[in-house]
Amino acid sequence: MRTMNLLVTLDENYLPPLYVLLQSVFVNNPQTAFDVYMIYDSIREERVAALSDFCAAHGGRLYPIEAREDFFRDAPVTSRLPRAMYYRLLARYLLPGSLDRILYLDPDIVVINPLDRLYDADLDGFLFAGAAHTDITGVTERVNQLRLQYERPGYVNTGVLLLNLDLQRKELQKEDIFAYIDEHKHELILPDQDVLNGLYGKRVLLLDDSLYNYAAHRYETYRIASGGVKTLDWVMQNTVIIHFCGKKKPWIKSSRGRYGILYQHYAAMVRRQAPDRRNS
Amino acid sequence: MRTMNLLVTLDENYLPPLYVLLQSVFVNNPQTAFDVYMIYDSIREERVAALSDFCAAHGGRLYPIEAREDFFRDAPVTSRLPRAMYYRLLARYLLPGSLDRILYLDPDIVVINPLDRLYDADLDGFLFAGAAHTDITGVTERVNQLRLQYERPGYVNTGVLLLNLDLQRKELQKEDIFAYIDEHKHELILPDQDVLNGLYGKRVLLLDDSLYNYAAHRYETYRIASGGVKTLDWVMQNTVIIHFCGKKKPWIKSSRGRYGILYQHYAAMVRRQAPDRRNS
Repeated sequence: MRTMNLLVTLDENYLPPLYVLLQSVFVNNPQTAFDVYMIYDSIREERVAALSDFCAAHGGRLYPIEAREDFFRDAPVTSRLPRAMYYRLLARYLLPGSLDRILYLDPDIVVINPLDRLYDADLDGFLFAGAAHTDITGVTERVNQLRLQYERPGYVNTGVLLLNLDLQRKELQKEDIFAYIDEHKHELILPDQDVLNGLYGKRVLLLDDSLYNYAAHRYETYRIASGGVKTLDWVMQNTVIIHFCGKKKPWIKSSRGRYGILYQHYAAMVRRQAPDRRNS
Repeated sequence: MRTMNLLVTLDENYLPPLYVLLQSVFVNNPQTAFDVYMIYDSIREERVAALSDFCAAHGGRLYPIEAREDFFRDAPVTSRLPRAMYYRLLARYLLPGSLDRILYLDPDIVVINPLDRLYDADLDGFLFAGAAHTDITGVTERVNQLRLQYERPGYVNTGVLLLNLDLQRKELQKEDIFAYIDEHKHELILPDQDVLNGLYGKRVLLLDDSLYNYAAHRYETYRIASGGVKTLDWVMQNTVIIHFCGKKKPWIKSSRGRYGILYQHYAAMVRRQAPDRRNS
């Protein structure tokens, strides 16, 4: 049995979808033991303990890491730039030095196929691996290029990031990140994404989003952009990560969409393991 | 860990969906070990062995029971009344005498919640438990009542049947079944269902089909008949068995329907366990 490192960063509001994410990871990766590192703040101790039990029941281990305020002493923090936005960018400072790589996942994700190929991506020379969302019109892309003046194609979505911790320890410095944010703080719309793309865009290995960061509400985009190949069947057989990005969250009744049924199915699996826990 | 007996009866054509059914059973009943009894004919030995390995990999056991032709010597068999139609009705003759009950499932089913409450149904005095499909108009129902002249409400679908083997050994006789078929052979449309309803209709404990035999293509029927309660969320949380009955099978591309995505997801789980096996 192999082991993989997973990183999640969140506050208490995102605990319910985190359970659903982890359930989907466990069911679809039965040959893997997961070490789940959670960088968090404002989560009650008994909630952390319950999550730890949940991971253990599925052969995994939870490593809770409370984000210490003093670490962010020098960080520009405002209401639009909350502390939590730094966690995935600065994870290398907060995680044990023994980890070589870790897969960060947003909690609004379900995993429907094994993670091995993603986790084993060749990161040689890259600080991160991530995916830009397929976009037929290219309008968003051009807007982001102008706004941030970066050169490479593809605005990387930070919902799924493989972190090359070995290399980051050498080449990713928190001072650079703080300085970049300070310089651009009036232009940053999606702070962590803008920083990743603006500062490290060229250091990101680009992944196929239809496999590793499939935007749940863009079924037609993927289908059309692939000339009809990426149908629902294709997605079920090939896509590893479905990301309910954007405003339509599958835990809100009116915005399920085509893939919401999968989210609901995994949410039901979680709920029946602890009927007193609310997970949708 | 508890044990449950499952019964499946099939020929080689239905092996691929059987894998999908079993995968969904295993994933959604992690606390249960399954003894899977398969009454079959015309399945190659290596296929049976592969299925046995699959069950073992999920903590289950396969008991293959080849249907012996001589047993059906006295049965009325024609092209419209194939031998296979008798398997679930006469299972009590073919199964070990030590089993007290067994749950029969059609292979065009996915199980999405635990089976315990169904399996533990109080069968006192009933030979079977099964469900009649919810029907708003009642037309099919009236037609079947006239055709078969039975009295109780609800034409039971035989896709999901809990068999009270203890009682069947005393009160279900193959001679009665053969005689009934012989007498009605010109009226029987769905032979096994017509026999169950015509001969044993009053001996069937009626189950809620929206929980235990949800007709996949009748989403609107359930929703409307429940005054809007039985939405997709309700189904994901409560329904145990989704039955792709009727002609629209989810392994046919053009007829997926609303729940086809679940079938495809479980089919993908099966496929990646044995990439050389075809399961959709």
